[in-house]
Amino acid sequence: MMTKRIAVIGAGPSGLAQLRAFQSAAMQGAEIPEIVCFEKQSNWGGLWNYTWRTGVDENGDPVHGSMYRYLWSNGPKEGLEFADYSFEEHFGKQIASYPPRAVLFDYIEGRVLKAGVRDWIRFRSVIRWIDYDPGTGQFTVTVHDMAKDHVYKEQFDHVICASGHFSSPNVPEYPGFAQFNGRIVHAHDFRDAREFAGKDVLLLGSSYSAEDIGSQCWKYGAKSVTTSYRSAPMGFEWPDNWQELPALESVEGRTAHFIDGTSKEVDAIILCTGYRHYFPFLPDDLRLKTANRLAAADLYKGVVYVHNPKMFYLGMQDQWFTFNMFDAQAWWVRDVILGRIGLPSDKQEMLADIEERVAREEASDDAKYAIQYQGDYIKELIAETDYPSFDVDGACQAFFEWKKHKAENIMTFRDHSYRSVITGTMAPVHHTPWKDALDDSKEVYLQN
Amino acid sequence: MMTKRIAVIGAGPSGLAQLRAFQSAAMQGAEIPEIVCFEKQSNWGGLWNYTWRTGVDENGDPVHGSMYRYLWSNGPKEGLEFADYSFEEHFGKQIASYPPRAVLFDYIEGRVLKAGVRDWIRFRSVIRWIDYDPGTGQFTVTVHDMAKDHVYKEQFDHVICASGHFSSPNVPEYPGFAQFNGRIVHAHDFRDAREFAGKDVLLLGSSYSAEDIGSQCWKYGAKSVTTSYRSAPMGFEWPDNWQELPALESVEGRTAHFIDGTSKEVDAIILCTGYRHYFPFLPDDLRLKTANRLAAADLYKGVVYVHNPKMFYLGMQDQWFTFNMFDAQAWWVRDVILGRIGLPSDKQEMLADIEERVAREEASDDAKYAIQYQGDYIKELIAETDYPSFDVDGACQAFFEWKKHKAENIMTFRDHSYRSVITGTMAPVHHTPWKDALDDSKEVYLQN
Ligand SMILES: Cc1cc2nc3c(=O)[nH]c(=O)nc-3n(C[C@H](O)[C@H](O)[C@H](O)COP(=O)(O)OP(=O)(O)OC[C@H]3O[C@@H](n4cnc5c(N)ncnc54)[C@H](O)[C@@H]3O)c2cc1C
Ligand SMILES: Cc1cc2nc3c(=O)[nH]c(=O)nc-3n(C[C@H](O)[C@H](O)[C@H](O)COP(=O)(O)OP(=O)(O)OC[C@H]3O[C@@H](n4cnc5c(N)ncnc54)[C@H](O)[C@@H]3O)c2cc1C
Ligand SMILES: NC(=O)c1ccc[n+]([C@@H]2O[C@H](COP(=O)([O-])OP(=O)(O)OC[C@H]3O[C@@H](n4cnc5c(N)ncnc54)[C@H](OP(=O)(O)O)[C@@H]3O)[C@@H](O)[C@H]2O)c1
Ligand SMILES: NC(=O)c1ccc[n+]([C@@H]2O[C@H](COP(=O)([O-])OP(=O)(O)OC[C@H]3O[C@@H](n4cnc5c(N)ncnc54)[C@H](OP(=O)(O)O)[C@@H]3O)[C@@H](O)[C@H]2O)c1
Repeated sequence: MMTKRIAVIGAGPSGLAQLRAFQSAAMQGAEIPEIVCFEKQSNWGGLWNYTWRTGVDENGDPVHGSMYRYLWSNGPKEGLEFADYSFEEHFGKQIASYPPRAVLFDYIEGRVLKAGVRDWIRFRSVIRWIDYDPGTGQFTVTVHDMAKDHVYKEQFDHVICASGHFSSPNVPEYPGFAQFNGRIVHAHDFRDAREFAGKDVLLLGSSYSAEDIGSQCWKYGAKSVTTSYRSAPMGFEWPDNWQELPALESVEGRTAHFIDGTSKEVDAIILCTGYRHYFPFLPDDLRLKTANRLAAADLYKGVVYVHNPKMFYLGMQDQWFTFNMFDAQAWWVRDVILGRIGLPSDKQEMLADIEERVAREEASDDAKYAIQYQGDYIKELIAETDYPSFDVDGACQAFFEWKKHKAENIMTFRDHSYRSVITGTMAPVHHTPWKDALDDSKEVYLQN
Repeated sequence: MMTKRIAVIGAGPSGLAQLRAFQSAAMQGAEIPEIVCFEKQSNWGGLWNYTWRTGVDENGDPVHGSMYRYLWSNGPKEGLEFADYSFEEHFGKQIASYPPRAVLFDYIEGRVLKAGVRDWIRFRSVIRWIDYDPGTGQFTVTVHDMAKDHVYKEQFDHVICASGHFSSPNVPEYPGFAQFNGRIVHAHDFRDAREFAGKDVLLLGSSYSAEDIGSQCWKYGAKSVTTSYRSAPMGFEWPDNWQELPALESVEGRTAHFIDGTSKEVDAIILCTGYRHYFPFLPDDLRLKTANRLAAADLYKGVVYVHNPKMFYLGMQDQWFTFNMFDAQAWWVRDVILGRIGLPSDKQEMLADIEERVAREEASDDAKYAIQYQGDYIKELIAETDYPSFDVDGACQAFFEWKKHKAENIMTFRDHSYRSVITGTMAPVHHTPWKDALDDSKEVYLQN
């Protein structure tokens, strides 16, 4: 009999993929260890579980949610579809390609409801601390049960950390911030674009958050949008009341000064300056320290913590692929734990694997190359497990198209549709262009 | 030789009082234990150390600061003056009675600079976890050194928790919050009243934050201020564009509905709904659980944790008195640790002390009674140590006057002045009425 105990931290898409992976093995007759998933929120879904709260949550802990109202998928759903649970299976029909948050939440939930794993999860349970004892080979996990306001410790053989890395904001300070007479907020705490209607908004950053929050503010009536880049402009063709400026130098009163000598009066500054890997519950010998990149540091095969191979991390890479990559990782980690896949006994061999991934990532800074790189990683992992194989190159193709559509028109790219690589059917064109679709509810979205 | 090691958590007014208490004993020739003060921020002063940041700090941990720009003392400084370091000693002259934040920060800092205790403090050091081992009688403190991103453990004989309790917001949810089209922010994350100029602002709560943040919004140009009380109205004579309504029922779009059937369109909701005692670094057997009250639960003499008398808490009471009460507590705790004051060996005796305090607090809900109650508590503690004795009843008198001045006119009470109970001199009347004093800098305030 298998008596191992596994702790999974987080019931977001990655943690849920892990539960589904084990459940799938059990369904096929395998003996599986005891799985306990700890989730600090009162529901599953991770970032996709929307909250109006900002700052700290009802327990005083950092709010996990970084999503905002009216958020639509920023990539085509054909790039993330579960190979074992298609959109058509879930919705009973094919749906348009850029679903709003509530629709994707529903889809994520559908698979795990079907798998029946909800009672593997302890909700409102915050991991406070983890220690590893090399003597016993066990992890001691300290958990705060918020429902009972009770702290307890339990022992586990493995820890799988799936706590996400887009929740702890990177918040730089610029001269004058302490005296700025308007609002300064990080993307993490941005919730409703309507708050900025009629306002002159400045966004720092030139990545997805700047692009999408700027577009939202524009869509919901901001007076003007200014985005400021540190390294390179996004370079899309922006609407008339949107300008892209170089790096911010300082603010004075309500005036923002940029390094090219220009300045602009603004009402609010939204810091779209990215996130940090944050594990306040882990000691030095277990804590991943990595930049947000495709070849995350210290992870053999992208998942095994090289300094303690009993510890795994899911989804810690920068993400072109998401749900299907988490699945590939979760099935692979499951098979290591079930003894179906062996790990190198030599740490050097694991380090060499990481080094090779780093070198290969750094060989090009082309976006297409990066997408294919991450697609290849998925192929590599699923080849070694029974995760349903699918046309990963076809999914890469959807991303290439998406890139092209964005370059053509940043305000209409979400009006396109793509073919599912799981079921082969073409998505319908959505009934309303994104820029005119002010209601993002599931009911309205599914009216195709 | 004394080899005890003491951990002090927090370098706010309470923690600093503890350092000053030990330094004062050392100065007088006493042998003192090794004191290590851990402070998560990069500077001392606790809440008085202003930050523009909201939500989580540069390390991803909850922002400690709850103070905002243009905050002035809400009680007279004559009620909080250090008995061993007067305002006149610090500023070289007597100053007006309601100093802005920067002036009080300067004053707090003055005493500890003079005492020379800065290098007892490890800054940017977050306490992550504490365990007590009954076998060794020692506490193991787990610290995250943010400068080095390094976690370490150290052993201590005593822990003195001075981490404050006005930093972790109590954030209730009302129906419609998730769909509200404006901004929802807790007082903890309120920073600059100018953000609300021209706005219709709703504040929930009827205590100090509602009163003061409402007054600030009014002073800096809000279009209207609405305060909503759950139990009882504040009942001051408010300006014309300020109304007090009963409890909120729900919000719909931008409309707030109250239980008396009235409704109001609002742009922003500021939750002035208080704070919660929050100790994410403490296990059940060390973690204080108390309401915000004068007779805090489980604390013998208001400071000794009754379930483990090697652990102390400072400043955990609701506060009429602040700095001088923290001093009274810190000197008393010091003397327990130095063996000058003995604790009852019988837990029942300690519990009886707490019960008696609770009963006495509950005997009346009159504010004057409460002020005198806390004044008497200070007298009780300082009678047992060498903290300079002072006219505590005179300080109570200043609070009674303050109450009267507030009732007379809530927008002018800060224009009054009181007599110091430490030096006996009368404070000057401030050069500018509070409602016209838009510049709250130290330089401008000291121009009397
Ligand atoms: C604004 C935004 C928009 C995005 N949009 C898209 C998109 O359109 N399409 C897409 O594919 N991806 C998108 N993403 C990427 C996103 O990272 C993934 O979709 C996905 O949510 C990652 O899943 P995860 O499970 O790894 O992490 P998360 O979703 O972050 O889930 C982690 C879980 O761990 C829990 N947790 C954390 N700490 C603890 C603790 N100490 N104790 C207990 N539980 C804990 C959290 O509560 C959470 O439930 C977006 C990300 C952001 C920030
Ligand atoms: C908005 C507001 C206005 C106020 N105005 C007044 C006023 O006008 N007059 C007055 O007398 N009082 C006022 N107060 C009351 C205030 O509580 C006291 O003045 C005083 O700041 C309390 O001191 P403290 O040291 O107990 O707590 P704090 O000032 O809160 O200091 C606690 C310290 O502990 C540190 N800390 C917390 N957790 C950790 C950790 N895990 N690891 C390491 N360090 C940690 C914090 O960073 C902080 O420096 C106000 C409070 C608020 C919220
Ligand atoms: N569904 C959606 O529509 C949606 C919306 C938002 C976000 N997301 C997802 O959320 C994740 C995070 O995206 P993100 O854009 O928040 O983070 P990100 O991709 O890491 O980008 C961070 C940006 O901040 C800039 N930056 C960092 N530090 C800075 C500083 N000190 N000063 C100025 N600029 C600074 C970076 O500039 P440099 O290039 O110079 O480093 C970069 O442009 C992604 O997975 C994304 O897909 C999705
Ligand atoms: N220097 C300054 O000017 C200044 C400014 C602000 C604050 N402060 C200090 O900060 C500290 C905290 O003051 P505070 O006012 O923030 O907190 P507080 O004194 O604890 O008051 C909390 C208020 O919120 C209400 N409340 C709690 N839960 C609620 C809910 N679910 N719905 C509606 N109302 C709810 C309470 O109502 P009930 O009465 O019904 O419980 C109460 O009115 C005090 O020490 C104060 O002196 C000082």
